[in-house]
Amino acid sequence: MSDAAQNAAWIAVDWGTTHLRAWAMAESGTVLAETASDDGMGGLGRVEFGPALARVTTGWPGEVPIIACGMVGSRQGWAEAPYAAVPCPPLAGTLARVPDAPRVRIVPGLKQAAPPDVMRGEETQIAGFLALNPGWDGVACLPGTHAKWVQISAGEVVSFRTFLTGELFGLLSDHSILRHSLTEDWDEASFAAAVGEGLARPERLAASLFTLRAGPLLGLTDPAAGRARLSGLLIGAELAAARPYWLGQQIAVIGEGALARTYAAALDTQGAPATLADGSAMVRAGLTAAWRQEKERI
Amino acid sequence: MSDAAQNAAWIAVDWGTTHLRAWAMAESGTVLAETASDDGMGGLGRVEFGPALARVTTGWPGEVPIIACGMVGSRQGWAEAPYAAVPCPPLAGTLARVPDAPRVRIVPGLKQAAPPDVMRGEETQIAGFLALNPGWDGVACLPGTHAKWVQISAGEVVSFRTFLTGELFGLLSDHSILRHSLTEDWDEASFAAAVGEGLARPERLAASLFTLRAGPLLGLTDPAAGRARLSGLLIGAELAAARPYWLGQQIAVIGEGALARTYAAALDTQGAPATLADGSAMVRAGLTAAWRQEKERI
Repeated sequence: MSDAAQNAAWIAVDWGTTHLRAWAMAESGTVLAETASDDGMGGLGRVEFGPALARVTTGWPGEVPIIACGMVGSRQGWAEAPYAAVPCPPLAGTLARVPDAPRVRIVPGLKQAAPPDVMRGEETQIAGFLALNPGWDGVACLPGTHAKWVQISAGEVVSFRTFLTGELFGLLSDHSILRHSLTEDWDEASFAAAVGEGLARPERLAASLFTLRAGPLLGLTDPAAGRARLSGLLIGAELAAARPYWLGQQIAVIGEGALARTYAAALDTQGAPATLADGSAMVRAGLTAAWRQEKERI
Repeated sequence: MSDAAQNAAWIAVDWGTTHLRAWAMAESGTVLAETASDDGMGGLGRVEFGPALARVTTGWPGEVPIIACGMVGSRQGWAEAPYAAVPCPPLAGTLARVPDAPRVRIVPGLKQAAPPDVMRGEETQIAGFLALNPGWDGVACLPGTHAKWVQISAGEVVSFRTFLTGELFGLLSDHSILRHSLTEDWDEASFAAAVGEGLARPERLAASLFTLRAGPLLGLTDPAAGRARLSGLLIGAELAAARPYWLGQQIAVIGEGALARTYAAALDTQGAPATLADGSAMVRAGLTAAWRQEKERI
């Protein structure tokens, strides 16, 4: 609860599969208060979204508009916000209305037919980045469970590709035979070397992964380097596949904390410097842009 | 139980992480009886190996020698059979003795220093294949959870590489977001196309994988093709990485059933015909070769 939140003109919500974050916003786009919970859409039935949002925004104004983005707009979410087809501006579609919550609007995701691809949530971060960097052309990289590379030109998302890199890292760390060979340590030099290896021979990934098991087993490599090498090999392979996206382009890495810095560092080893933009700040800026568009339409 | 088993001169045992198979063998190498259980080494403490073997060979002669191969010889197995270092013949090391079971001998696995790699069990299949094909030179492919590509020349294993392909298939099928998009169906044409894709652009794997989710979600691809495409992309990427091994070489695929045929079919699409050799027959032939070597030493 927050007294400042009483003055909110609207509420911004980032609602993904595993998290829910909300901000009480002034008309200007200034944050008056923020809150979060673990009530991600992945764990909620359709009738549970309203109560989950009410819990996390207790004490905030009950009648102001709410603008949400992320998986909350998927078919399994609160209300489906049909994908807009690229090429299009990141905020291209009409915000979806939620039948049982008339003050809520949901930002649609983007889809691409060839190769088939989808995003939900990242389009709002891109909109935020473009709102703060008008006229920016280049390639945005959004690291995560399903990392995105997004080609942006003249205010539009031209094309994009999703990589399962983060999910592979999680599966291999937690469920594969490699889990026996990984420690909590992180070694920066091993990371950089593995990025280089992944970039140079991306096709060898499945074989390089097994060396993370065999090396420590034979006492030939230090298990403390395992996590950094696993991450580096996967990110290196992703950078190799995404090279047509980033080579010779202006690059922005939009994300949070260590993972975003890790991608920027990996790109830097390839002579490709990237601007870092905070993922949380970008989503708020994007929701603010969506809120302004929506007001003009009403 | 089997009357024929009473005449066994020795017992052959293939003991992996998840399975235990045993054969009552005549002196000549003929199989008199066979048996199997789910008592893989992965589920057994050191004192449980003896009872597990006794259970599965009930009624067989209690005093004949037993020759075993596989993960039973690992550090976490019944008794450690230290790796022999390549280049060397597949049956290079001394069979390991088991302290609490004097009639048991275990075949050592093979190790390689650069790149770090190990095998346990496959060396016995290779020995069996070479016993049945004396003087054979070429490359053996042993598909599985940890698929192996093995360069063989003048009766020796020269080098080898392990690919995590089978384990990745299992993790992605059962634990990743792709599980929502896969059915039990198998489509041969989709498999062949995906092998070609994986071979042509192996570095795109992590992105190609996401299309298995996005395609059906957008109604653009048939979910019934998903499993075959997943398998094809992973095997195609493996074949691309293993190309220096198999290109222009004589190839043997040593394995069982559908998976071995799948690899042979994938190689065939690349104009690289392979001999298929039954994995179970090869392990028996290899254990027979180990038994003969051991008799000469005693």
